[in-house]
Amino acid sequence: MLSQPASSPTPDLSRRLAKLTSILDVAKAMSAERDLDLLLPLILFEATKVVEADRCSLFILDRERNELWSKVAQGSKSEIRLPVGSGISGQVAQTGAVINIPDAYSDPRFNRSFDVSSGYQTKTILCVPMRDANGEVTGVIQALNKLDGGSFNAEDEELLLALGAQAAGAIENALLHEEINRLFEGFVSASVVAIEARDPTTAGHSGRVADLTVTLAQALEHLTTGPYAHTRFSPVELQELRYASLLHDFGKVGVREPVLVKAEKLYPHELEALRARFHLARKDLQLQSYRRRLEAVKVRGDKHLAEIEGEEEERLGTELKQLNEVLDFILTCNRPTVLAQGGFERLHELGRLQYSDADGQAQPLLLPREIQSLSITRGTLSPEERREIESHVEHTYRFLTQIPWTRTLRRVPEIAYAHHEKLDGTGYPRAEKAIPVQSRMMSISDIYDALTASDRPYKKAVPHTLALDILKREADSGQLDKELFTVFVEAEIPRRALHDKK
Amino acid sequence: MLSQPASSPTPDLSRRLAKLTSILDVAKAMSAERDLDLLLPLILFEATKVVEADRCSLFILDRERNELWSKVAQGSKSEIRLPVGSGISGQVAQTGAVINIPDAYSDPRFNRSFDVSSGYQTKTILCVPMRDANGEVTGVIQALNKLDGGSFNAEDEELLLALGAQAAGAIENALLHEEINRLFEGFVSASVVAIEARDPTTAGHSGRVADLTVTLAQALEHLTTGPYAHTRFSPVELQELRYASLLHDFGKVGVREPVLVKAEKLYPHELEALRARFHLARKDLQLQSYRRRLEAVKVRGDKHLAEIEGEEEERLGTELKQLNEVLDFILTCNRPTVLAQGGFERLHELGRLQYSDADGQAQPLLLPREIQSLSITRGTLSPEERREIESHVEHTYRFLTQIPWTRTLRRVPEIAYAHHEKLDGTGYPRAEKAIPVQSRMMSISDIYDALTASDRPYKKAVPHTLALDILKREADSGQLDKELFTVFVEAEIPRRALHDKK
Repeated sequence: MLSQPASSPTPDLSRRLAKLTSILDVAKAMSAERDLDLLLPLILFEATKVVEADRCSLFILDRERNELWSKVAQGSKSEIRLPVGSGISGQVAQTGAVINIPDAYSDPRFNRSFDVSSGYQTKTILCVPMRDANGEVTGVIQALNKLDGGSFNAEDEELLLALGAQAAGAIENALLHEEINRLFEGFVSASVVAIEARDPTTAGHSGRVADLTVTLAQALEHLTTGPYAHTRFSPVELQELRYASLLHDFGKVGVREPVLVKAEKLYPHELEALRARFHLARKDLQLQSYRRRLEAVKVRGDKHLAEIEGEEEERLGTELKQLNEVLDFILTCNRPTVLAQGGFERLHELGRLQYSDADGQAQPLLLPREIQSLSITRGTLSPEERREIESHVEHTYRFLTQIPWTRTLRRVPEIAYAHHEKLDGTGYPRAEKAIPVQSRMMSISDIYDALTASDRPYKKAVPHTLALDILKREADSGQLDKELFTVFVEAEIPRRALHDKK
Repeated sequence: MLSQPASSPTPDLSRRLAKLTSILDVAKAMSAERDLDLLLPLILFEATKVVEADRCSLFILDRERNELWSKVAQGSKSEIRLPVGSGISGQVAQTGAVINIPDAYSDPRFNRSFDVSSGYQTKTILCVPMRDANGEVTGVIQALNKLDGGSFNAEDEELLLALGAQAAGAIENALLHEEINRLFEGFVSASVVAIEARDPTTAGHSGRVADLTVTLAQALEHLTTGPYAHTRFSPVELQELRYASLLHDFGKVGVREPVLVKAEKLYPHELEALRARFHLARKDLQLQSYRRRLEAVKVRGDKHLAEIEGEEEERLGTELKQLNEVLDFILTCNRPTVLAQGGFERLHELGRLQYSDADGQAQPLLLPREIQSLSITRGTLSPEERREIESHVEHTYRFLTQIPWTRTLRRVPEIAYAHHEKLDGTGYPRAEKAIPVQSRMMSISDIYDALTASDRPYKKAVPHTLALDILKREADSGQLDKELFTVFVEAEIPRRALHDKK
């Protein structure tokens, strides 16, 4: 590609050799830089040096919109967009031909408005296309004002083209890298939203836990004393922590919906079945009463009928009232238990009550599993249901360990796995005391958000201050990390992570 | 980095210039190649040319395992792994110093066993490290047998180092690209598995549809006539199709579980409630009978009691039998309707039946919504439930359009969106007739797998041949694409996509 320059004989082979060698070095540095915000300044710096210009700018071709765009024209900060075909850069992008202008102000293609607005005085311009490996133009590099006061020469054209060719590949790689990362990030976020939508009361929880945890991790860098004085998280470590936080509840997809959103101790269909049984018992009491009336007539004769009916109506009334009273008690027991309550002993007595079913068989009015559910002393979940909810951590871990994480993200599964462990070993699923610092931060964020987020079927939202009190109790009792909790409070993580964003 | 070579003065600046220029061109080509299987041969080809060697090999350093690995030593096909430190390549990887051997057989570091097994005769060896932008060794390139019969010289060292430096960046980019793609792919697959796990009877469906559809798309390339004679799918288009297929049912996460797995026309809790009502009605018939007996005694006197009891027992027996018979009929109606059936008219008559509830109020024995559910003429789903199931396409589309797809994957949402559309406009959700060819292929795969996959709660699995018959009917009636269906059958897509894999 690089042959003898068109217009001048090569004056100094050594110098060209040195310049080409430096372009090779730059090419290597460029190919290693995948962050576009760092790559573009690097290219401009090297371009300015290699052609000995005062400043350079670079435009990337957006084929979809037929525009050139630039984040970093040297001397400018905001993104600039130019239509292809217009101006010097636009023409180079359109034709692919180099434009070398020895005196800008005498060239009709030059647009003085940029100079007018910036106060810069353009004298000489060299604008070359960047081409990808297929020879397609992917952008332009423009150098302004040759430093020695002369014009850009054929060697400058050759060198800037060579640099541009290397830059094109590096930019394409960086853009692609950015695209795939955005794609992965977008897919993860959208999946989490989709899964959280199954339980509307926890929607947005994972995103908030990610924001809280990452903000907390960043706040550690101000610590100069204590156990975290030297704990610092690099950008890739923060990314790892972000994914672990975002995905910590992914395993809830493996928990049945009715359990996830259970609002009372009996499921609605269980309560319906219980009510139906009470209806049957009610009808049965009436039937028993009429049977007894008929039996009494056999014994005492029909002249006592009115008397018999009077006795039986009274007895039936009492029995039905008792039955209603039992049902009322059960409905009270059915509500979520917030504070430790007594009174469940009576349920076991009620377990002895019977009625005759449709076939006349004696049946318990209250089933053993109903008694068990109604006796739940905390919230609405039975031990099995609590285990099912808690199993989401195992599901999350199993899900995450299936994924071929890149080397920099490889701890995502173990960080997420430990988010319900407690420092005193009372957590789950492993009752593990050695908990990664990332998970310890996540625990604080997770509990804080679960407490303060909008009402859930089984509990009311708790105000910020009360949430901190509850967290403090857990920290004081040795379950949560005290130092991290202090940073959480003192650095006002919730305000910075959640409220300042809105 | 590249300075005057250590041992010899530069004999020919032009030649070096030309070589460096060619390395720049190679660097550009390398940076554009993100497929490692194509990149590595390209590097070896250029390395061989630049140092004028007979052959070259390249080893990548695996720091975790402290090994060198190679996919493509020239002249070898399988992956080779060597411990760092051992052999010539291993030493270069360990020390980072170039090894240049003018006569292999007289050098103690040379291991003849490779020559012995391959029949190759190694004479001269040049082995150089590849270093990344931070100067870290990331691999080695080894050139064998200088073509002119002499040994490799200082200029060769210099050039191979320069090439290796560029190669290191390109390889790192390709590896990273591969890693992120694998991560994305892994995350997508694992999410699909997690979501499908909610409905165990459809587990694996999305993966099979992806295999079937991609195999069908590939089979089109053998067509030389007909509407698809010129339809060909590039690797990136196949990837797009694969993701669209894999994710076509993702929106099922937005459909409630009981609807997803509904096996009969009434949900289990609905049937339970209905049975409870029949128990109550049964008890009520008994109660009515006893009330009548008591009334009859009042009128006819207690001497007719035995007679009254006899009449009433007979009447009650008949009434209870009728009630049981109604329940049996309802249980029959409750099963999924496979073929169009009559007999549902009677349900509406039964809707007039009443019983007295626990408070003595007349109540319908069969609720209007139960009659509606039991009258379903196809499968087990009510129109609303069918709409809820069908809404998964909208959920899928909404989910997919949130994701920032890369340019090459941008059609994923629209391809997935159309997988339930029919060519005659009878599909859903848009009743669209203009359907992308990708979606038309996916429809065939989707229906085939839904039919042949293992038993679902509402239907038995259908054998391959019958499934093709059903698809043929849909193709003949103008719903499915006839040409694509012909390829599906003739190219034996199911066998190739599903069975050959196992």
